[in-house]
Amino acid sequence: MPSDLIKSLQQLVGADHVLTDKAAAPYCKDQRGNYSGAALAVVFPADTGQVSAVVALCAAQHIAIVPQGGNTSLCGGSVPLASNAQPQVVINLSRMKLIRSIDAVNYSMTVEAGCTLAHIREIAAKNERLFPLGLSAIESRCEIGGNLSTNAGGVGVLRYGNTRDLVLGLEVVLPDGRIWNGLRSLRKDNTGYDLKHLFIGAEGTLGIITAAVLKLFPRPLSQATACVALRDPASAVALLAHLRANCGDRISAFEIVGRPCLDLVLRHFPDTREPFAQRQQWMVIIELADVIDVPLNTALSAALGSFGAGIKEFLVTSDKAQSAAWWNLRKYISDAQKIEGISIKHDVSVPVSNVPAFIELADAALQQQFPGVRIVAFGHIGDGNIHYNPSMPDPLQNAEFLARSKEVNRIVYDIVARLNGSISAEHGLGQLKHEEIHRYKSALELELMRNIKNTLDPQGLMNPGKLI
Amino acid sequence: MPSDLIKSLQQLVGADHVLTDKAAAPYCKDQRGNYSGAALAVVFPADTGQVSAVVALCAAQHIAIVPQGGNTSLCGGSVPLASNAQPQVVINLSRMKLIRSIDAVNYSMTVEAGCTLAHIREIAAKNERLFPLGLSAIESRCEIGGNLSTNAGGVGVLRYGNTRDLVLGLEVVLPDGRIWNGLRSLRKDNTGYDLKHLFIGAEGTLGIITAAVLKLFPRPLSQATACVALRDPASAVALLAHLRANCGDRISAFEIVGRPCLDLVLRHFPDTREPFAQRQQWMVIIELADVIDVPLNTALSAALGSFGAGIKEFLVTSDKAQSAAWWNLRKYISDAQKIEGISIKHDVSVPVSNVPAFIELADAALQQQFPGVRIVAFGHIGDGNIHYNPSMPDPLQNAEFLARSKEVNRIVYDIVARLNGSISAEHGLGQLKHEEIHRYKSALELELMRNIKNTLDPQGLMNPGKLI
Repeated sequence: MPSDLIKSLQQLVGADHVLTDKAAAPYCKDQRGNYSGAALAVVFPADTGQVSAVVALCAAQHIAIVPQGGNTSLCGGSVPLASNAQPQVVINLSRMKLIRSIDAVNYSMTVEAGCTLAHIREIAAKNERLFPLGLSAIESRCEIGGNLSTNAGGVGVLRYGNTRDLVLGLEVVLPDGRIWNGLRSLRKDNTGYDLKHLFIGAEGTLGIITAAVLKLFPRPLSQATACVALRDPASAVALLAHLRANCGDRISAFEIVGRPCLDLVLRHFPDTREPFAQRQQWMVIIELADVIDVPLNTALSAALGSFGAGIKEFLVTSDKAQSAAWWNLRKYISDAQKIEGISIKHDVSVPVSNVPAFIELADAALQQQFPGVRIVAFGHIGDGNIHYNPSMPDPLQNAEFLARSKEVNRIVYDIVARLNGSISAEHGLGQLKHEEIHRYKSALELELMRNIKNTLDPQGLMNPGKLI
Repeated sequence: MPSDLIKSLQQLVGADHVLTDKAAAPYCKDQRGNYSGAALAVVFPADTGQVSAVVALCAAQHIAIVPQGGNTSLCGGSVPLASNAQPQVVINLSRMKLIRSIDAVNYSMTVEAGCTLAHIREIAAKNERLFPLGLSAIESRCEIGGNLSTNAGGVGVLRYGNTRDLVLGLEVVLPDGRIWNGLRSLRKDNTGYDLKHLFIGAEGTLGIITAAVLKLFPRPLSQATACVALRDPASAVALLAHLRANCGDRISAFEIVGRPCLDLVLRHFPDTREPFAQRQQWMVIIELADVIDVPLNTALSAALGSFGAGIKEFLVTSDKAQSAAWWNLRKYISDAQKIEGISIKHDVSVPVSNVPAFIELADAALQQQFPGVRIVAFGHIGDGNIHYNPSMPDPLQNAEFLARSKEVNRIVYDIVARLNGSISAEHGLGQLKHEEIHRYKSALELELMRNIKNTLDPQGLMNPGKLI
């Protein structure tokens, strides 16, 4: 049967676009090397019609389907399971790279799932528009279909919202192969249940997003960046509220960086340097942007100057090189961690007002249980989204620490839950957390999710073992 | 059985809070007088627990449930059906008026379904925050539960989004009486299907929203208003794109008003007057707002001045009285129409770039079929949302015209569909359009909606005959 299936798939998409065995292997493991599985084939359809035909074929044969874009998931969401009762086929959408249309007056564009985020941003910019989703580390590789399926976040959420907020319409191939054309480009449409929001963030478990109508925005012309040393996370939260009241939507980023992050970056990236004369424990990098060409650094300095005692020092610039140098201190954190060694990563969120309590409680609980633990904490204060990655500075101790990661997760996630937070703010559940979530979501909510899954995918073929 | 039911209801919520017969009648008809039905009782629960108990009781007895807030629906969405196979009970949430909490630092507040929109805006303002949903004509009466259930629009959508964009979390009583607590106040949470978006805009057909966590925003400190005479709707659309690029998110309203609207307002409201020396065919009223105290009228004048030939005349002010006088020309349109006589109302949307084509095609088609027809067209250009209300100036002719409203709807809606629009931009489907939508939505989309309805409400008890 597999060989018949391969032949049928080749007939549908062309022999060159079906990979098997060794050729398929690179698409069956995730980028971090944490997850790998096996697939009968990796299929590369050219268009929505081919996706539909491939899904219909798999559905008829009860073969599970793993939708895949740039395969940049951090949770094993886009690769086949290592062990699955059903055989699996990966449907990779990277060939579907068409910008179907752009409507600058409607501030919208229609794109296919395989367009990289960088390409979409570039085409928007050529039309004097901004597509604000920004994931600088991976945007040349990640594809919009994956961004939509995971409701990607990033540094621009504070100003522009999550990916789901940037979508006007979707085209989706359903688990039986039929195509739902929901490619509307309307700002208002109250004619029934909002189906697009079901598919966005569903991690490919309800269907395959093949195209989308995206919202565009005016392009900012001026910007200013501040690097601010703060007493503590509580000052950061208060400063953000103060800045929102004083600068409104000009705030396009507000990122916190803890001392241990800075130490790692300074150690591993020789082109970086301490921004302040003194060693500071907490800093935030703030960006204002405006579509009008105005001197934003004046407004930013004034707003920072009127804040009060929580600020220990601040620097403001409109110079691009200086701004980039500060931003590198934030952008290099992930790579600096990689060089330093493995840590236990948490992508959590709490209400913004609970961020200081989260950091304080989690730090104290971990220090008690694991004396000497080093905590790399950074992220998106405006979204209450902290990347919270503990490790042990000593490699031997760290190996032992990593072996106890379930215990560490339990400590961190229980505090998150107590503060009404989420154990996955932006990376999704994938394989990594789809069991852990059972501890933190109510039985009723899980039942509702399961019922929706069963309704849309009664055979349970779409991306099994992920999310739900 | 009904008398037993009434007793049980009285035990659950108190005898004073169950109305029957004549006392119930006012809650069984809509505000426009177009729809009326009969209910065994109208029940006023005090809290979520009581809503849950009442729903469970009705579900056990197969009694249909009509959720009701301020009963300001324009589509008969919040009253019982005139004829229904099942007996119906209205659950009115007006007693649930608690502001449960406000978190100014998190820019969020948690409110119960029965809070009026005006009250919520007032409490937000007292905390130096803005809740931006604005429905000036009804906001002292409409309740947030209804606003959420219909995904209400209004003039602020251009800047702040529809109601669904203003929600962080929900509490919902499900059709079997269980309570789903989704009252999260997180900006990022990627842990499964986004259930809240299913209930928002579902018009009470999937459950009863009992509370919500709403997003708040910084309060604007400065504003400027422009009254602009334009050559045609195409100039209005181009001007909006130009202003977005030049003023960005400062644009908080951009409303178009056609000549016939202005004529009706000037005729019926003696305190209004022509804004320009010459009689103009099309005008827009624009508002800029900013959280910084800056002279926005300068920026607005500059942006208007650089636009070009589409503008015939423009006036700009920062004076509140002058601004209010212009806004009255927009706000009084609905009442002026009421005084003038009945028209056939359409609340439609198309992509913003298609607005000129819509007005041109619909005007031409209606003039051909109904020579002399008077078209009152106004609304939210930025959302592509036009209120398009034709009537005949002569009362006798108008009676004949109204009798042919199905024909008129067909002409208008078919043009909307051809331009990829929606036949209900902001008012919802209710009873008014829940059959009409079958012509304009794909069979597949209707099937998906029906499947979701059956999954969440297998007995079909929630607000029957509305939306689906």
